Amino acid sequence: MTKFAIGVDLGGTNLKLGAIDEKGTLLEKIEINAETQDGPSEVIKKICANISKLNERWGQTYKLSGIGAGIAGIMKLEEGRVITAPNLPGWEGFPVRSRIEEGIGRTFKLENDGNVAALGEKWMGAGRNSQHLAFMTLGTGIGGGLILDGQIWHGISGMAAELGHITVYPEGNLCNCGNYGCLEAYASATAIVRGARHLIKTKQASLKMKELFVSSKEVEAKDIYRLAKLGDSSSVELFSRMGTSLGIAIAGLIHIFDIDTFVLGGGAIPSWDVFEDSMFLEVETRSFVQRADPRNIYKSQLGSNAGIYGAARLSFL
Amino acid sequence: MTKFAIGVDLGGTNLKLGAIDEKGTLLEKIEINAETQDGPSEVIKKICANISKLNERWGQTYKLSGIGAGIAGIMKLEEGRVITAPNLPGWEGFPVRSRIEEGIGRTFKLENDGNVAALGEKWMGAGRNSQHLAFMTLGTGIGGGLILDGQIWHGISGMAAELGHITVYPEGNLCNCGNYGCLEAYASATAIVRGARHLIKTKQASLKMKELFVSSKEVEAKDIYRLAKLGDSSSVELFSRMGTSLGIAIAGLIHIFDIDTFVLGGGAIPSWDVFEDSMFLEVETRSFVQRADPRNIYKSQLGSNAGIYGAARLSFL
Repeated sequence: MTKFAIGVDLGGTNLKLGAIDEKGTLLEKIEINAETQDGPSEVIKKICANISKLNERWGQTYKLSGIGAGIAGIMKLEEGRVITAPNLPGWEGFPVRSRIEEGIGRTFKLENDGNVAALGEKWMGAGRNSQHLAFMTLGTGIGGGLILDGQIWHGISGMAAELGHITVYPEGNLCNCGNYGCLEAYASATAIVRGARHLIKTKQASLKMKELFVSSKEVEAKDIYRLAKLGDSSSVELFSRMGTSLGIAIAGLIHIFDIDTFVLGGGAIPSWDVFEDSMFLEVETRSFVQRADPRNIYKSQLGSNAGIYGAARLSFL
Repeated sequence: MTKFAIGVDLGGTNLKLGAIDEKGTLLEKIEINAETQDGPSEVIKKICANISKLNERWGQTYKLSGIGAGIAGIMKLEEGRVITAPNLPGWEGFPVRSRIEEGIGRTFKLENDGNVAALGEKWMGAGRNSQHLAFMTLGTGIGGGLILDGQIWHGISGMAAELGHITVYPEGNLCNCGNYGCLEAYASATAIVRGARHLIKTKQASLKMKELFVSSKEVEAKDIYRLAKLGDSSSVELFSRMGTSLGIAIAGLIHIFDIDTFVLGGGAIPSWDVFEDSMFLEVETRSFVQRADPRNIYKSQLGSNAGIYGAARLSFL
């Protein structure tokens, strides 16, 4: 009987579940609004109900190997508890693993969302030919995951791969974490919008960008991307700086780890074509290792499914 | 019969050998001028002769476990060959392992010098209570070594832990590697002297610093350290920037790896007291992980013996 696993991916907005067989075939995917404002107990109910649904549907033709989740927060993995989760209100200290285990009557594997996405890309995505990879999600913030020797690298307190908080410009933009010049303050979707607002405030914005902010109340990074594609100088500048800052961070990671594969995912990936040139140029300029022996910097192949793939993979390892 | 191993540490200037027993007792140390200008064959002769000497002297009361070396260069470890070694003229491409093995008639373990120093500190030095550590030597340049799960992390091409080439100031000083703003361009002994020369050239130097360069032809970092200890503003500024740049890099490493121990060694360590404050402050300011759960940043405990300890350790693993 072929095995399958259920992978859960809980972000600040969406809850995704996937039933995936051991060969990596996605049998079924469920995606619903997480409604995290209702607090953890309600979200746990949703998770458990949907796990049961998938298990009932697929557990007859396949043998359930296990269930795991990636959750958008910093976890105390031994205790199965959330430490902090800025995008999940009310989850601080919540004993998520035991609560899910009570709900489903089975053991459950818990992970951080960046780690499972990295593992997903390693298993069935852009990193499947590598034993080592660094993964970054470029979204509202920047998350990360590190795979070394085929395994998630957790560090001593489960806080490894906070790649968005590598300093790239020591005297640069203020980051949400309190530090100045973090990668996240330059290469997240939020940073692009903030950068645009700053250009407008300091009267450096192009005419087109000013018009965008006049015509739209809720400007998003993708609106600025559209302007960049039209050649708008301010928008091009912001994405170029995004690429440069990614290049600085990736060159650093090459010198630190000497790994061969970097995978970038998240909501900002559709704008790849407007930041890739400056990113690759920067990595090459800054790294003699890259010049001697070029490393792979890939777009995520699994996109928003990376999390459920990696969460399912936890049960096959 | 207690085991012992012979560790060799070949730098640009000195050749060191140590006979060390399996408990970490240094039985004997030999330190001679490497005379690298005579080319690799002459240096190999010296290495082999001294290995034999140590083996004859200690091989009767102890059982020889093995022999290993750390060499100041980038190595192709599988082939036992040097790729590049800026401080060892004529060693590019040199098949160092096979040549030593021919000379001593035994197998021989080869490593990069930063890696063995890291392993030495892990075994008997400042990192002996940690499974993971990042080591940096602050000398003419900045070398590094990474120990993850108790093992040297090599990366895919043996070029990992080039920690001196992490960019800390993207638009900063030119580094020898061709990049701008590398850690090495701020926190090596060379960088301190260059920084002083720059202050003089741009007429920003203090009177004391100007006097130093007038009175001495070959100013070294330790001369500038002495001025810093006397409160000279220009010298204090240079060491403070050294500490700040180390702090930026270490904060990044904490976010990347989440490891608990950082060990700094090399010729610049005697000036620890004039750069430590700015280093610790910078790590704390930049890293929420450090603020939540402070990591250890230690001086090397083995000093210039770290290399022979680590090289000997290769045979006990």
